[in-house]
Amino acid sequence: MKDETRRLNILRISGTGAAKERDLVVRETPVTIFLNDFDLVTLLCSPKDLGYLAVGFLSSEGLINGKEDIKSIFADKKDGAVWVETVGGKKLRENILAKRFITTGCGKGPSFIDSAKFRKGLKADSGFKMQANQIARSMKEFQSRSLTYRETGGVHSAGLASPDGIVYFNEDIGRHNAIDKVLGECVLKGTKSDNLVMITSGRVSSDILIKAARARIPIVISKSAPTDLAVRLARDLGITLVGFARGSRMNVYSNEWRISAKPPAK
Amino acid sequence: MKDETRRLNILRISGTGAAKERDLVVRETPVTIFLNDFDLVTLLCSPKDLGYLAVGFLSSEGLINGKEDIKSIFADKKDGAVWVETVGGKKLRENILAKRFITTGCGKGPSFIDSAKFRKGLKADSGFKMQANQIARSMKEFQSRSLTYRETGGVHSAGLASPDGIVYFNEDIGRHNAIDKVLGECVLKGTKSDNLVMITSGRVSSDILIKAARARIPIVISKSAPTDLAVRLARDLGITLVGFARGSRMNVYSNEWRISAKPPAK
Repeated sequence: MKDETRRLNILRISGTGAAKERDLVVRETPVTIFLNDFDLVTLLCSPKDLGYLAVGFLSSEGLINGKEDIKSIFADKKDGAVWVETVGGKKLRENILAKRFITTGCGKGPSFIDSAKFRKGLKADSGFKMQANQIARSMKEFQSRSLTYRETGGVHSAGLASPDGIVYFNEDIGRHNAIDKVLGECVLKGTKSDNLVMITSGRVSSDILIKAARARIPIVISKSAPTDLAVRLARDLGITLVGFARGSRMNVYSNEWRISAKPPAK
Repeated sequence: MKDETRRLNILRISGTGAAKERDLVVRETPVTIFLNDFDLVTLLCSPKDLGYLAVGFLSSEGLINGKEDIKSIFADKKDGAVWVETVGGKKLRENILAKRFITTGCGKGPSFIDSAKFRKGLKADSGFKMQANQIARSMKEFQSRSLTYRETGGVHSAGLASPDGIVYFNEDIGRHNAIDKVLGECVLKGTKSDNLVMITSGRVSSDILIKAARARIPIVISKSAPTDLAVRLARDLGITLVGFARGSRMNVYSNEWRISAKPPAK
């Protein structure tokens, strides 16, 4: 946890008075992703697993399709930079320049959402199913692993899980970054993700759903609430969206057929 | 609340079984801000107070300095677009094109953070102070006004408050948007903000601090955690940063002199 947190002097005020104390605060650092020497984006994130972050981001943005597209990765934590070189780098660079012009700023979602091509190409066709009690168990494991959150209250967690438990787990000050980190690790380790569920501590907006769709993930589970646009996308894309997963309770917003509320008869 | 929420069919699973129900979900919509007919950015947001959102965003990004810079605003909720025309529009447009190239993507912070000019120009020099019990009272009022959150769990709240109570309040699916909406309303109504406190339900990362700094707000209060970079910026910029403000308890991370823990003697 040493890299992700920092101890600071604070003034703690309560109903009875005030006291100077030392307290743990989560770290935040700007990290720039260079793709084939091109300054692609600067993210504000937790300074850990920057290679995973870069690969997950590129993958979520549709700029790489898998491990086979990556030639090299060099992460410099001190300078806050990650250099990714891809196979066939020059052509990609031209595509990005065109793309950047359309989707600059924080509007990464809309230009894709409206595209029929996006929806058709990313339909989750996996027959993968899960039992409600397996989801409850995954959420319990997920919560127990959120160490930095328990220390600082300042991060989001994300995980990829199979019915047997959590496969990849990460934390970051940004809910998007935490998801990109687990997706990046999954890509780099060459794990198939169409039989995994994505778990997030954060709210599920449309851009989170798009990340799941690009990774071919059939089930998205959140402790928190979804938006109506995320639900609509989930329905269109064949993804099962589960919100407010707390203990044995959960709301299923789309494609309920993937979740069985009771264990199958033996 | 009608515009901000939508009722959907869901499957509610609990320990004892599953039932089909109708449930409220928060709405999310892409909104594009056009500045002098230039497609500046697309934000994913709650479809309410789009004019405030646009003006707050432009103001937070340093693209306008105040109400006097705005010639006209036209918000089209149906098409998800806001057109803002400024005084001296053409020159601004050239500046943006230069700027966009540097700070594209979600990296709105870093290019400013490292700039000595930014820090020097935005130092909060207001002598404004507040008592801890006034902060506790503001937070109580703040919580009681978060209607959409209580209905859906899916939004962040932001407010601007004086020692007497909340002056501006808004909610949005994005914590940045909620803050931009209250800042935009403040700009459009011509209210001085250097004697107001900013309240947010969300975590305080460096980009939130920059929004406060640009609006000359001397105190930032959050129910949640700050990051170390936000604390460092707050210290450099002369802003008082209060986190974990819950009931009569709160942590003061910087410039404690603005907060008195006990009411002054009479």
